[in-house]
Order: sequence, then C-alpha cells, then structure tokens
Amino acid sequence: MRNLSEANLTQTVIDSMKEGQDARTKEILTSLVRHLHAFIREVRLTKEEWLTGIELLTAAGQLSDANRQEVILLSDTLGITALKDFVNHGHAPGATEYTILGPFYRDGAAEMPAGASIAEGIPGEPVLVSGRVLDGEGQPIAGALLDVWQASGEGFYDVQGQGLPDMGLRGRFRSDAEGAFHFRTIRPSSYPIPFDGPVGQMLIATARHPYRPAHIHFIVSAEGFEPVTTELYAEGDPYLESDAVFGVRDSLVVKFERREEIEDGAPDGLSAPYYHVTYDFVLEPEE
Amino acid sequence: MRNLSEANLTQTVIDSMKEGQDARTKEILTSLVRHLHAFIREVRLTKEEWLTGIELLTAAGQLSDANRQEVILLSDTLGITALKDFVNHGHAPGATEYTILGPFYRDGAAEMPAGASIAEGIPGEPVLVSGRVLDGEGQPIAGALLDVWQASGEGFYDVQGQGLPDMGLRGRFRSDAEGAFHFRTIRPSSYPIPFDGPVGQMLIATARHPYRPAHIHFIVSAEGFEPVTTELYAEGDPYLESDAVFGVRDSLVVKFERREEIEDGAPDGLSAPYYHVTYDFVLEPEE
Repeated sequence: MRNLSEANLTQTVIDSMKEGQDARTKEILTSLVRHLHAFIREVRLTKEEWLTGIELLTAAGQLSDANRQEVILLSDTLGITALKDFVNHGHAPGATEYTILGPFYRDGAAEMPAGASIAEGIPGEPVLVSGRVLDGEGQPIAGALLDVWQASGEGFYDVQGQGLPDMGLRGRFRSDAEGAFHFRTIRPSSYPIPFDGPVGQMLIATARHPYRPAHIHFIVSAEGFEPVTTELYAEGDPYLESDAVFGVRDSLVVKFERREEIEDGAPDGLSAPYYHVTYDFVLEPEE
Repeated sequence: MRNLSEANLTQTVIDSMKEGQDARTKEILTSLVRHLHAFIREVRLTKEEWLTGIELLTAAGQLSDANRQEVILLSDTLGITALKDFVNHGHAPGATEYTILGPFYRDGAAEMPAGASIAEGIPGEPVLVSGRVLDGEGQPIAGALLDVWQASGEGFYDVQGQGLPDMGLRGRFRSDAEGAFHFRTIRPSSYPIPFDGPVGQMLIATARHPYRPAHIHFIVSAEGFEPVTTELYAEGDPYLESDAVFGVRDSLVVKFERREEIEDGAPDGLSAPYYHVTYDFVLEPEE
C-alpha cells in the first residue's frame, strides 16, 4: 500500500477493511467503494466537482433537523429511496404496492370513529374516502389500522408552520367486520418539496421541477399481515408523470369523483359538492 | 413514470434530468445515479442499512465546521480523495507525485529566510530539511515557493487547540539560484485522524485503525510549472503500509538520517543530535 496508483487503489481500500463488527458491514462498504470509485473513474471527476459534491453533502447534513431531513430528500430525488423500497418490498400480484414514506409522518395520530374528519376546522374541498382492507383471497380483514396523513389544499403539512392545527390532517381508523372503512378529509394539493437547499440546487442544475402530485398517505396494518406504507394519487394531477421523488405507481392512482349531492350512506358532516375516493387495500400475510 | 418498477426506475431517474445549467452536470449525475443504484441492487440494501447511511451522512455534515470537515474525512478514508487526485494528476515519469492535501492546510504562512525554523519555541527532535527544486531535465528552478506545514511531535497541528502557537509549524521558503532550499523543523509524529464521529464508527466497524504515518506537507510552485501538493513520509513509520487516508507513495518516503554532530553548511540554530531529510522536488511544465 506504499506504492499506490490509480490501478491498485480501489483494491487497496477494499483490502484495508476487515470483518470488524460483522461480515455484512464489510460487504456493504466493499460494494459502495467499488461503485463510487467506478463513478469517479468514469466521469474523471475534477477537483472542483469533487469539492462541489463535498459542499453539497455537508450543507445537506447541516440543513437537517427535527423538521427537515435534506439528506433523505437527496436520496428521494435521486431515486435511491424508491429503489431501496423496491428492493425491500417485492409485492405479491394484487397486493397494494409500497411507496415512499416521506418526511412528514408523525406517530401518535388520534384514533377516530368511522366517518370522522381529519380536517376539522381546516378549509378545503370536502372529500369522502372509503374502501375495504382485504387479504390476498379477497376476504375482509377486520380491525385493520389505517394511519392516514396528508397535506392541505395549499400543499402544507401541520408541521410546516403554516397555521394548521397541531396533528391536523392526521388520523387513525379501524376497518369494521366487513373490512370496510370510511373517513372525511379535504382535497390535498400537489406541492413542491423544499427547494431552497442543496436538493433545490441539484434540481435546478438538471432543469427538474420540485413538485409531488397530490396524494394521501396511508400505513395500513393488521395482525398477521405485512404492514404497507403507501400513497393514493389523484388522477389528472399534472405531476403524476414527473413526481420529484419517484413515488407514483399506476395501481395507486385513484379518481376523486365529484358528487353534486350527498349519496346514501355518506357520513354525517359531509356537505355537497364533494369528492368520493374509493380504494381497497390488499395486505400480504406476514413472512 | 407512473408505472415505476425496480426494472425501470434507474432509467426513469436518469431521463428526468435534462441539460439544465450545463451538459457536464447531467453527465456526472447520470453516472452517479447509475452507480449508486447498482450498489443498492447488488447488496439489496435493507431499510435499516439505508437509514444507517442517512444518519451517518447527516452526522458528518453536522460535525463539520471551520476546524473540522468530516465529509472530506469520509471521502479520504474511502479512498475517494486519493482516487480524485490520481484522476487529476497523472504525472510525468520522474516528476514529484501529488498526494492528499489534508484538512490542515492554512493559507498565509510567513515567508522565512533559508535555514529558518518553522518550529520556533515548540519542543521536539530537531530536523534539517534540504534539497532542490528541479525541472524535468534536472535543471534548477530558482525562486520556487515551498509552502510547508506539519504536525508536532505529539501529532497535533496548530489549529487543533493543543497549545501550539498560531501558525506554528508552518512556513514558506524560496529556492535559491541553484534551486536549493533548506529549513529547520522538528520531527513530526504519526497521528490518528479524528475518530470520535461517523468516520470513526466506520473504521471501527471494519477493524481499521485511524492512523496516518508521520509526514511533512508541501505545496511547491514556480512560475511556468504545475504546482504540486505532496507529503514526505518518514521511512520506518509503522503506518506506511496502512495509512488511513491512502496518501503514501513509494517515491515520497524519505529517510530521517540521524546526525550526532553538526554537519558543515548546516544553518545556525541547529543542535545535535538531529535528523537530516533531503529531497529534490521535480516540477512539470505548466499545461
């Protein structure tokens, strides 16, 4: 290792790593070194470009705090998060697809009765969401927990300091004996991810926009089944084809069907006109 | 891009990038995405492992400030910095090899007369460093600037808050009409890079030590020639074969020859016993 050269450097770095804490760490770092070195050789990275990368990563760490995680956003916008999700959630045919969790999930939303609104006191276009939680054979799963969160009609989550009530647009619901659930909310808006930091610089440099299509987040879980983290996207949204974080799946695009009059069976508190979204979640058995 | 899958995701991310500010940025990011995605596919990175990586990078950014740059240290310890240097500094046969700049360079060291000491008032074993600055034909380069810095006998730089005088162990010297230079210093020690952060976690996880072999840093420059950033390493140092940041080159390992008596021509202020280091720097013509 005294006689280092461009030709032997990569193997020297790999050979320096022993099986310290576990064999897996060495396996991961070996692959990472090999691929990062291949990247540098391929593009013949200049000193200035290397420094730009260092500064971008440093700024991403420094921007991150309890309310913002710029390093995850970088992973999201490079498709790394989506790929990690694909690698970990190969799904059975017919099962609801997994997609990105995003940075705005908060644990501890209140469990609400069927038909309740997660948008109490928040202005917006009324929406009724209903559907069922099913297993792979189409049988209802009773008592499944649906953890729901979303942005407002202006594209903000409660934590973004835009005047929404704390824990607003968040709630938990249980499926009934027939696997059915329903709740009220308001129509979410598409919105830009934060683009005043290094991620924004990267998007601008490659002429990408920072928008996500409008969506409602869910984590659906039930005893004996794999929980699924997913999102429902609004058909017709202009950003379905170019989601900044690569979260959209065909199977998760739903219609917000406009209703001019209240339908039979609609919950109390709904006012027309409103939108009706229906979706059946299909869970896979626990591994 | 609505119908994303593990198979089409990488190309979708690449296709999302347009030639925004310049074609080079798209070229670099395309290669980076391809290689990072290949890494994730190869190791089938789990969610927990992904999060460990996110947390490590975030902590590296947050630890960095004016006196410490943990993201560069991560680049150094993964051999990325050394590879970037190789890619940018293919050197002519016989020319002095480039190696890592390191985080401790400070601009603005005082220019000192030949024979002066950069270690005034700092305890340690006396060292005389002498040599010449030459071109590729062995002709002397007069008026070359040698910017020198190093760690103390305890392994600390002035900026590390260990009681060294500000700008201690730093100085600038000029080669004379014969290309010759000489200056006094103290013998540097091998030392650990900072290992109380994420880089330290990585080293521990792969059973690597954090040490660099003892060395003296130089940036040698002269009008009409390419400046060279380099280090001279002490022969016999136990870490020559396992430098934590992959900086050692055979051609940069020098003898610290012990002298029991003052040699003829030694500068004033030298006391025996001392070590004599000689090295001729060979510069390439400017491109």
